[in-house]
Amino acid sequence: MTTTDANFTSRTRQRWVLKIQCQDAKGLIARFAGLIQYVNGNIVDLYQHTAEDINMFFFLAYFDIDSSESIMDILKDKLDAVHQTHPIEWELHCLQQVPRLAILVSKTDHCLYELLLKKQDGQLDCSFPLIISNHMDLEPIAQHFSIPFFHLDVKNQSKAQAEAELETLLKKFSIEGVIMARYMQILSPDFCRRWPNRIINIHHGFLPAFQGAKPYHQAWNKGVKLIGATAHFATADLDQGPIIYQETLRVADTCHIQDFVKSGKDIERKVLYHAVRSYLQHRIFVHDSRTFVLE
Amino acid sequence: MTTTDANFTSRTRQRWVLKIQCQDAKGLIARFAGLIQYVNGNIVDLYQHTAEDINMFFFLAYFDIDSSESIMDILKDKLDAVHQTHPIEWELHCLQQVPRLAILVSKTDHCLYELLLKKQDGQLDCSFPLIISNHMDLEPIAQHFSIPFFHLDVKNQSKAQAEAELETLLKKFSIEGVIMARYMQILSPDFCRRWPNRIINIHHGFLPAFQGAKPYHQAWNKGVKLIGATAHFATADLDQGPIIYQETLRVADTCHIQDFVKSGKDIERKVLYHAVRSYLQHRIFVHDSRTFVLE
Amino acid sequence: MTTTDANFTSRTRQRWVLKIQCQDAKGLIARFAGLIQYVNGNIVDLYQHTAEDINMFFFLAYFDIDSSESIMDILKDKLDAVHQTHPIEWELHCLQQVPRLAILVSKTDHCLYELLLKKQDGQLDCSFPLIISNHMDLEPIAQHFSIPFFHLDVKNQSKAQAEAELETLLKKFSIEGVIMARYMQILSPDFCRRWPNRIINIHHGFLPAFQGAKPYHQAWNKGVKLIGATAHFATADLDQGPIIYQETLRVADTCHIQDFVKSGKDIERKVLYHAVRSYLQHRIFVHDSRTFVLE
Amino acid sequence: MTTTDANFTSRTRQRWVLKIQCQDAKGLIARFAGLIQYVNGNIVDLYQHTAEDINMFFFLAYFDIDSSESIMDILKDKLDAVHQTHPIEWELHCLQQVPRLAILVSKTDHCLYELLLKKQDGQLDCSFPLIISNHMDLEPIAQHFSIPFFHLDVKNQSKAQAEAELETLLKKFSIEGVIMARYMQILSPDFCRRWPNRIINIHHGFLPAFQGAKPYHQAWNKGVKLIGATAHFATADLDQGPIIYQETLRVADTCHIQDFVKSGKDIERKVLYHAVRSYLQHRIFVHDSRTFVLE
Repeated sequence: MTTTDANFTSRTRQRWVLKIQCQDAKGLIARFAGLIQYVNGNIVDLYQHTAEDINMFFFLAYFDIDSSESIMDILKDKLDAVHQTHPIEWELHCLQQVPRLAILVSKTDHCLYELLLKKQDGQLDCSFPLIISNHMDLEPIAQHFSIPFFHLDVKNQSKAQAEAELETLLKKFSIEGVIMARYMQILSPDFCRRWPNRIINIHHGFLPAFQGAKPYHQAWNKGVKLIGATAHFATADLDQGPIIYQETLRVADTCHIQDFVKSGKDIERKVLYHAVRSYLQHRIFVHDSRTFVLE
Repeated sequence: MTTTDANFTSRTRQRWVLKIQCQDAKGLIARFAGLIQYVNGNIVDLYQHTAEDINMFFFLAYFDIDSSESIMDILKDKLDAVHQTHPIEWELHCLQQVPRLAILVSKTDHCLYELLLKKQDGQLDCSFPLIISNHMDLEPIAQHFSIPFFHLDVKNQSKAQAEAELETLLKKFSIEGVIMARYMQILSPDFCRRWPNRIINIHHGFLPAFQGAKPYHQAWNKGVKLIGATAHFATADLDQGPIIYQETLRVADTCHIQDFVKSGKDIERKVLYHAVRSYLQHRIFVHDSRTFVLE
Repeated sequence: MTTTDANFTSRTRQRWVLKIQCQDAKGLIARFAGLIQYVNGNIVDLYQHTAEDINMFFFLAYFDIDSSESIMDILKDKLDAVHQTHPIEWELHCLQQVPRLAILVSKTDHCLYELLLKKQDGQLDCSFPLIISNHMDLEPIAQHFSIPFFHLDVKNQSKAQAEAELETLLKKFSIEGVIMARYMQILSPDFCRRWPNRIINIHHGFLPAFQGAKPYHQAWNKGVKLIGATAHFATADLDQGPIIYQETLRVADTCHIQDFVKSGKDIERKVLYHAVRSYLQHRIFVHDSRTFVLE
Repeated sequence: MTTTDANFTSRTRQRWVLKIQCQDAKGLIARFAGLIQYVNGNIVDLYQHTAEDINMFFFLAYFDIDSSESIMDILKDKLDAVHQTHPIEWELHCLQQVPRLAILVSKTDHCLYELLLKKQDGQLDCSFPLIISNHMDLEPIAQHFSIPFFHLDVKNQSKAQAEAELETLLKKFSIEGVIMARYMQILSPDFCRRWPNRIINIHHGFLPAFQGAKPYHQAWNKGVKLIGATAHFATADLDQGPIIYQETLRVADTCHIQDFVKSGKDIERKVLYHAVRSYLQHRIFVHDSRTFVLE
């Protein structure tokens, strides 16, 4: 490849996303859209919301650009300059550089299959460099999809040891985010704090109700008419992290508890998939322990 | 009217419903369907469910019959006879004899309108002989629909006094059931106990989450992605009575709290209407503080 | 009122919406957001979409402004100036100046009640200066809500005559848009052409299926599992105008045709309300006989 | 195995389903429930519906029984006897004897995966003895699930020849029903007639709208707000067979056609799964080219 080719490659048309949250102020959109125009980007979709009750401004712009490193550096400098006068939290991502996510599982396969199949179908723009589990049961699925599978021995070592091993793996594979796809272990508060808003968990219940164990049994005994699932970021407080997505499903009173469990799987995989997709599209803003997902 | 006319009237074709719940046993359906056939009834819709986990049998049969009092007495005797050998709870209702329900309201009108309009449209087979409120605001609506309106003074008398007045009204108008259509007062445990499974309340939240006051505010702060409403029988435990019907509604993260409140009204009226309809069609079985609604 | 008062009033803080559709080009958002900033407006919600397949750009900005006539004239001039170099269709509306809409009905009241109640509840920002019907049945509802009611005699005059009478009424009351709330008459192609994208009709079926008469009967005979309703702009082609909103409802196979009709009413009123709301919030873009509703 | 063992096995407690459809008449339920009681069966769930408009009676009873061949022969004789006096269509199935179904696919894998995973998870009580395709693409999936895969050459032979080959395979593997899981070939009217109500097809559109090719493109151009999928029995009339299940999904106006196609897959697999499940539970009655599914 010649130098010219390399230049050409590095200047290929790319889609980027600029994500900003800050206190509301006048003229913010014009300012941020102006920055994108300044570096010759073309916005194709823009989402903006002002949460008036709390005076917060959320901004999400997808734009196409003949990007080169120098151009993006200019944009970053401009954003930093804005930050000097009006504090903003900003992120800039190239959608062609797909995030590397680790999947954690135990024995249940419906969420794992969903993630792998959606990715294969081009509906999740990420890579899954490895699957980690505290059981061996799902290894054949990893093999079928040609993904390295690692067994994490949580029985014969302390939680601290197991999490150290886990983090070594995540580092080795340059993992940016973690999906708990029905991983039946609880990550330590410390671990969660080291990965803020980067661990997505699926809870098989409609939070905030029925927290903790056997939510479907609780739901059946209560005679609820809908069951649900909730995807959220894992935080130090179990099942209390910011909610990303939720869904409910009507259940007939002729259902048995086992029907709840089985039907629940369909919502779980749907909710987890949806949450991961929002994450990969950088649509999730976290503010004051709740999310604002712009879509 | 001549005797012949009277006979004719009393033998008009009518639709009845037989509702039975009991411990499961072999041959129950054949037995109960046999009884209906014995009195020459023709079953048009039958719902039956055995909750195997708890070994309970629920049976609901709608049947047409050239009914006369004597025929129905035979049926009742037969059911009592069954009860001697195998304890059953049974009810027998003629669908042409519509229940008399009282509506309790405060200031909000969306649930009241829903009930009155659905009844007017022939979708609620009942009569609403009176509307009772602790405020005067909704009297014009009662007038528009030509229904007596009574103001219940809850400010200048004790709860016991107000409830005594309420019960006098219910008795005077031969009321069989009560609908709390966003009646912002809490009925006393004693009152609820005297009207078991006959007071329907609409809670503006997806129970069991967000109990108590301002559920929509709680929901917004938590960043939930769905809001809900729950219709349940009022019991001595506030907001803990058997759930009759529930529904959720997706809310965008661009919603304000007031949007939650306003959108919530649509689910509330829908859920309350649905619950009252199930009640009027005698579809609700209560067992061990949960319902089984067969539909 | 003194001159000062008048000035004060005319400069009160107001919410406006700027709506633009045009061929896509680079820098459009920055340009339009810049114009709003130029006149000192503060954008609170912005929706933008580029339909890449057809290269169309849609832009919707809600902004707060201490508006005076001169300021808005400046904005209008700027928009016209843009139009000289890059053709755009733009609209500018003050949300405090609510549109005047006429409601057309026949004998069915569920859609009429829905509109009047939602408006009364503050969920439809418009006024309903008059109700027009080819029957007298719904006059009491108009009276209950204190709205002038006009009977349009479609039997004893030609369609042309009736429509002339209708248009005289619309003009007399300065009507900007028309809602056919189950008005069982067909407006002439000429009439529809004179009110492009300003007549909203509710069709009691899930278009494009089951066009024309008795869609619920057609649906039952076909054994469909969902019924639907569709709100659309009335055009010269019956039931073929741009779709604004749709919804479906699951129906059990134990339903009778009459159940379809009755359940259908709930979707009809919901869909019509939703469409009118989108219309009042200026969210509906029409391009090439389909809509793009940004929400 | 000794004779005693054989006896024991043949008298194990089993769950059966009795399915009957006929003209309505008085006392049918008591009669049919009585027959089940006569052979000592215990009904655990019963569904019955009378379609009054067309005077049709549908009956579905799930019952537990210590079945032996002789007992079931008695029941069959009794049913035949009923048929002599009042013509009925009846079926009797043991739920422990799971049907053998063939899956037909082309290149798309989402419906195939759904069926295989749901079966593996115990939610489809059937066996899939073989997968047949006109392409080789999905063979690895068949291998992963250890199911024989057969390639049907539809290019180098006539449709008649290919269908003969197909039927030979179905016969060889004792197949009772066929699932077209996005099999992009049209079966001949003759073939469909030989397998009445035993071929389930998934149509990627909300029938009866958008029949034929590229329904998602048609839908996008029309600007529909919901897309759908329909499972139906394949008949001689393409896409006109009795509908088994349908579902719709809201699509935003910011979606591209490709989003329709991708989102559509989720409804397709859900609808197909639901239809196959109803089929396996013997819940589908076909009468006069529509279905009545009791659930």
